Amino acid sequence: MPGIAVSTETRPRDWLEKAELHGSVSEPVLDTMNFLNEITHRYPDAISFAPGRPCDASFDPEQVIGHVRRYLDHLAERGGSPDDVRTALYQYGPTAGLIRDIIADSLRVDENMDVPAESILVTVGAQEAMLLVLRALVADPDDVLLVSSPCYVGITGAARLLDVRVRPVEEREDGFSAADLEAAVREELAGGRRPRVFYVVPDHSNPSGATMGARAREDLLRLAERYDFLILEDSPYRLVSPGTPLPTLKSLDRTRRVVHVGSYSKTLFPGARVGFVVADQRVRDADGGERLLAAELTKIKSMVTVNTSPLGQAAVAGALLGAQGRLSQLNAGAAARYGGSMREMLRQLDARLPEARRTALGVSWNEPSGGFFLTLRVPFTVDNEQLASCAQDFGVLWTPMTHFHPGGGGDHAIRLSTSSLTPAEIHEGTARLVRFVEARCAAL
Amino acid sequence: MPGIAVSTETRPRDWLEKAELHGSVSEPVLDTMNFLNEITHRYPDAISFAPGRPCDASFDPEQVIGHVRRYLDHLAERGGSPDDVRTALYQYGPTAGLIRDIIADSLRVDENMDVPAESILVTVGAQEAMLLVLRALVADPDDVLLVSSPCYVGITGAARLLDVRVRPVEEREDGFSAADLEAAVREELAGGRRPRVFYVVPDHSNPSGATMGARAREDLLRLAERYDFLILEDSPYRLVSPGTPLPTLKSLDRTRRVVHVGSYSKTLFPGARVGFVVADQRVRDADGGERLLAAELTKIKSMVTVNTSPLGQAAVAGALLGAQGRLSQLNAGAAARYGGSMREMLRQLDARLPEARRTALGVSWNEPSGGFFLTLRVPFTVDNEQLASCAQDFGVLWTPMTHFHPGGGGDHAIRLSTSSLTPAEIHEGTARLVRFVEARCAAL
Repeated sequence: MPGIAVSTETRPRDWLEKAELHGSVSEPVLDTMNFLNEITHRYPDAISFAPGRPCDASFDPEQVIGHVRRYLDHLAERGGSPDDVRTALYQYGPTAGLIRDIIADSLRVDENMDVPAESILVTVGAQEAMLLVLRALVADPDDVLLVSSPCYVGITGAARLLDVRVRPVEEREDGFSAADLEAAVREELAGGRRPRVFYVVPDHSNPSGATMGARAREDLLRLAERYDFLILEDSPYRLVSPGTPLPTLKSLDRTRRVVHVGSYSKTLFPGARVGFVVADQRVRDADGGERLLAAELTKIKSMVTVNTSPLGQAAVAGALLGAQGRLSQLNAGAAARYGGSMREMLRQLDARLPEARRTALGVSWNEPSGGFFLTLRVPFTVDNEQLASCAQDFGVLWTPMTHFHPGGGGDHAIRLSTSSLTPAEIHEGTARLVRFVEARCAAL
Repeated sequence: MPGIAVSTETRPRDWLEKAELHGSVSEPVLDTMNFLNEITHRYPDAISFAPGRPCDASFDPEQVIGHVRRYLDHLAERGGSPDDVRTALYQYGPTAGLIRDIIADSLRVDENMDVPAESILVTVGAQEAMLLVLRALVADPDDVLLVSSPCYVGITGAARLLDVRVRPVEEREDGFSAADLEAAVREELAGGRRPRVFYVVPDHSNPSGATMGARAREDLLRLAERYDFLILEDSPYRLVSPGTPLPTLKSLDRTRRVVHVGSYSKTLFPGARVGFVVADQRVRDADGGERLLAAELTKIKSMVTVNTSPLGQAAVAGALLGAQGRLSQLNAGAAARYGGSMREMLRQLDARLPEARRTALGVSWNEPSGGFFLTLRVPFTVDNEQLASCAQDFGVLWTPMTHFHPGGGGDHAIRLSTSSLTPAEIHEGTARLVRFVEARCAAL
């Protein structure tokens, strides 16, 4: 049959188009993923700097089973009867989550973030947390979500799903600029719109790799206070990066300006699909009473996923309990490995394109101290076509930065991911990448 | 501090109100749950006919671990390398799900539902599936979601989250009426609106307990064809009910009018948070090409939860593999137990309120052959206040049917759930319930 819309005569053609229109809200992400998957499939021998996924080389499925058992034992040690333990794993469980106290303890010891368990909502990864926060806080057509751009496609996708207006604030080459954010906020206000939330990944950002400095963090918090917007902090890479990270925005937050989104996908394993949001802001009830924003988010979650899998929560909780909440220590080895890959990438780029040469070509890159990503800037235009021909002619894959610019732009930048490559792959992959860059520059 | 809205002077008070407005979209559900939880907590000795949760008496956490292991072994037997198996459990995995083929096989052997795996999307329970379907298919302010009323709060909550217009179609005492649905469809069309989707639980409905007859199923399919709307079929109770169920609407669907939502929360365990949607409708691409609706839903899912926990999927897949896909056989014991509880409830009601007596009082109830719920109709008004005083004075809990009527109404009906009570509790609970009913009738 030719498709819903034309399967009968009684419905105008625009029915399908409308459905399409809505069905396609998230194309930027999935089309990017599909295109990269398709290219990767077509060139199996290409070395890929594209995927941002964590490395699973040291993962053993038995670890997960051990984590689940540890959590169930913990419930029993805490006085849970066999029925209680069985019910905890079997039933739906509370919408806000089973393991909020364990997460709160971990944030306290690992992130110096002292928040009550009631201000935490366990979510199906950071993605659901972003969706819930936007749904709760951005209500009016004039409300604006500000995003540091280039930015993670998850936040812009959630915004499109909810028809939320997005205002990109372009990063400088050295990352976030409070002055640029303030200018954008003033412009929105002058246009009669109301900036509600500013989304940012302060540490080793996906996609650029930029990290916000200590001074910039204080400036951002002051701006949020001054212009009365909230900061949506998403920081999945800080505990899998070497060295001591700067304090989270949330741990510096004195006036409840920061909603902190957390993910266990990089620090534990993505397959658990467990994240969380810290929302300790007080909001007023319809009847004038006060409650935590987390309680409002919980209401919305009950309409999105009802609750987060107790099985996934058990796996996460067991891992946290086994590490006394110290994900940083649990990830010390992974952080060293990821950091080593990033340094190797930077070494290889520098060896193949020394200062004088890259300056002559008009090529540059930033130098993240951790995280999964860095930005390579080139003097030629970068798009999917360039990627396809690069895969075919040079055997190397990467992501055009254009995919991460909601307002357009980024067409002279490339996102390189080092998270899932071996040193040997980085060595050979960089050689291929530089051959591609040299060839394109020569053709200018 | 007094709350976001008044924490600075620079933001009008309506900011919070707007946030509240949006944060409170799902109040009907969660407020109901909160109220029931609160009442239950306040009267611990009360017998509760309120919760609709499945019974976990025969559940053992070790079963889950066994299911996960079975699925991993299955991957290895199917030629997966140790790396493949590790990656399947560890990584995000495909947005559409890891276990679509296993679900498709199960639907074929258990439900005579022959659909390609590509038409299946694995979701975080049925709730996410409903949200995705509404987001994809209901695009225009004039589009209407029709719901059989009283109806499950999950669908109306998802509709409110997405600002989707809902038109309730009231059930008769004997359940769904195609004539009433057609009248509602015509009225919407006459009003310039476009009915897109009709949501219904055809088997042992939550909340009423009604089951749609064979003839009514055919009538409904013809109506959908004639008026070009889709049917959203949600049927979580059929395989945990005694006897041979009527065919699903999807298995009767010859023209791809039915989007079928599935849940493993009652047949396996809610803690997995795994459901699915069968969406084999063909929709046209922006470029005029065709694709399955399931692919459109997958795009939207990538913005809601990215993917469903591979750990939860592994637990479900292992259980399905262990039962050769036959959930019906796996649940034969549970179905007999649930059916026995329902029959015991009906026996107790009949014994305490025989025909003549209940007629004199103006009390009646339906007689479901399975499922978790039945409807008790009474001559007095039923609301939360009545519930609270019933809990205090008679020691028995239930759910006012008003909570399940999106368009208002149901204030002379009570939802009774028998799913998690023992025969002894049903015996004593019914005695208390009848004392309450007799007392209220006497006071009229």
